[in-house]
Amino acid sequence: MMNTLVIRVDPERRTWWKQTLQDLIPEVKVVLKDEDEGEYAPSDVKYAVVWNPPNGWLATFPNLKCVASVGAGVSHILKDPNYPRSVPIIRTVSESLRMRMTEYVVLHVLRFHRRLPEIEQAQAERKWVQYIEPLASDVHVGLLGLGNLGAPVAAALNSLGYRVSGWSRRGNAVDGVRVFTGPSGLQELLSEAEVLVCMLPQTPSTENILDGETFSAMPAGSVLINVGRGEHLVEAELLAALDSGHLRGATLDVFREEPLPAENPLWSNPKVLITGHTASAIEPATGGRVIADNLRAFMNGDSVRDIVDIEQGY
Amino acid sequence: MMNTLVIRVDPERRTWWKQTLQDLIPEVKVVLKDEDEGEYAPSDVKYAVVWNPPNGWLATFPNLKCVASVGAGVSHILKDPNYPRSVPIIRTVSESLRMRMTEYVVLHVLRFHRRLPEIEQAQAERKWVQYIEPLASDVHVGLLGLGNLGAPVAAALNSLGYRVSGWSRRGNAVDGVRVFTGPSGLQELLSEAEVLVCMLPQTPSTENILDGETFSAMPAGSVLINVGRGEHLVEAELLAALDSGHLRGATLDVFREEPLPAENPLWSNPKVLITGHTASAIEPATGGRVIADNLRAFMNGDSVRDIVDIEQGY
Repeated sequence: MMNTLVIRVDPERRTWWKQTLQDLIPEVKVVLKDEDEGEYAPSDVKYAVVWNPPNGWLATFPNLKCVASVGAGVSHILKDPNYPRSVPIIRTVSESLRMRMTEYVVLHVLRFHRRLPEIEQAQAERKWVQYIEPLASDVHVGLLGLGNLGAPVAAALNSLGYRVSGWSRRGNAVDGVRVFTGPSGLQELLSEAEVLVCMLPQTPSTENILDGETFSAMPAGSVLINVGRGEHLVEAELLAALDSGHLRGATLDVFREEPLPAENPLWSNPKVLITGHTASAIEPATGGRVIADNLRAFMNGDSVRDIVDIEQGY
Repeated sequence: MMNTLVIRVDPERRTWWKQTLQDLIPEVKVVLKDEDEGEYAPSDVKYAVVWNPPNGWLATFPNLKCVASVGAGVSHILKDPNYPRSVPIIRTVSESLRMRMTEYVVLHVLRFHRRLPEIEQAQAERKWVQYIEPLASDVHVGLLGLGNLGAPVAAALNSLGYRVSGWSRRGNAVDGVRVFTGPSGLQELLSEAEVLVCMLPQTPSTENILDGETFSAMPAGSVLINVGRGEHLVEAELLAALDSGHLRGATLDVFREEPLPAENPLWSNPKVLITGHTASAIEPATGGRVIADNLRAFMNGDSVRDIVDIEQGY
């Protein structure tokens, strides 16, 4: 009976994950859900590396000691009402995730600020247009969430000159960023946010936070970038705010159902840009190394920095 | 006989320029070429504020003391073989120009790096795609020009994590940037440049620098961003490099003829993005103030930082 680590992630890279984690943690037996069915007993499973496991599945391992999420979010695990809540969860955050998220948000803030959609439209009509937009130092960007990913994004926007405000439960301080907290702080941030970026974790109190009421509280002509979770956004109310012209555009990386179904009206809305949940997708080589390091630290009884507060949900 | 300042700029904002400069420099008489014809004698003109004046025109003012360019470039003045070369030229550079140029280059580097053109194409086909691009820290950006505008751009790219190299005549040092100089330095920079950004001044030695030979020296699949001058680029050789697939794309802000004529094939090339010479267009309010400050310093005999070295051409 050997300590076993079971992997349940997207089919595409499963074999790669198995090989990588087996090489990096040779002292456990690494198996794949499905492919290696029958080669391990549920009672041998001490560790699990997962993305979006079905409800009830993790509860089938009576000796589970620790779960690692292949990503910074853990709502895909905690959504399970049968999750054995005494089992700690480690999320995967790395410098590479922070760098990728920063690249993404900076790109999409600049894309709206420098009017790229309108410029591309003009090019299609062979029209020479000259927009002299306000300087970054006159553009307000509001960030919902100032944690592991939000803080470096805020710093990057700040160094480009943007006027950055942030809202978080903890009110984390970030140099050069006005920090708001609580419901009235949210309203204050929204009232100035020409670009609103959602980087919140998904918890019961943040679900549906991007709704019609939120959009109404933003200035006319503002835009939304959602890199949090699909569950933050009320899609129909976003479409209404875009149709009315109150919002100028939206960039969405996350959706309630992924991949986004082909019949979803967001695909063909000219004011919406869709990316496939890659804003800060883990680059596999780095992700494998970080997960292996975290699990080994846990096995050795060392402290693990990215352990989740299960009661807070992130 | 009053000291006169003559303005010759794009027709659109002429009246605005006249009013603004007259308010800021009340001790001179401000007139517009054309509109105010007959209200001043050529011999009264001591100062000129210009964009792209026709050859020979500035030589018609025998008492001209100083010319201000409405922009950072001065090739639109020095192209004139009759330019009275003992008359100093002041170019207009301001923090706002640097900020706008930085916004533009960062946006367009990220747009290629994060594969926005391919993602937009996928959206048109309702296709969920997931590109996990290399991190910024694995992407080489080569900057041609490391002066007033190049240096802050290099710093911004550097702080996002990019591997930045720069090439300049003077070999200006910028923190975290590998600096090359001379013809062999250029070849070394090109050989690694996955994104090549041209921010050079236009001089006889930089004209046509973006030609087929340069593109061949770049890695396959690389991209070009030209925010220098249209004269840097050999358009036909760019189109050939795009057609062959050696270059993946180009973003062009400047052209030999501006506005870019509707029949130019660049407009409809799907690998080319065209912007209307606005990468770092002067925001008029700031531009007016900077020009007035520079001219007043010149009139008072104070040192003017942005005076041009006419022999070097910038």
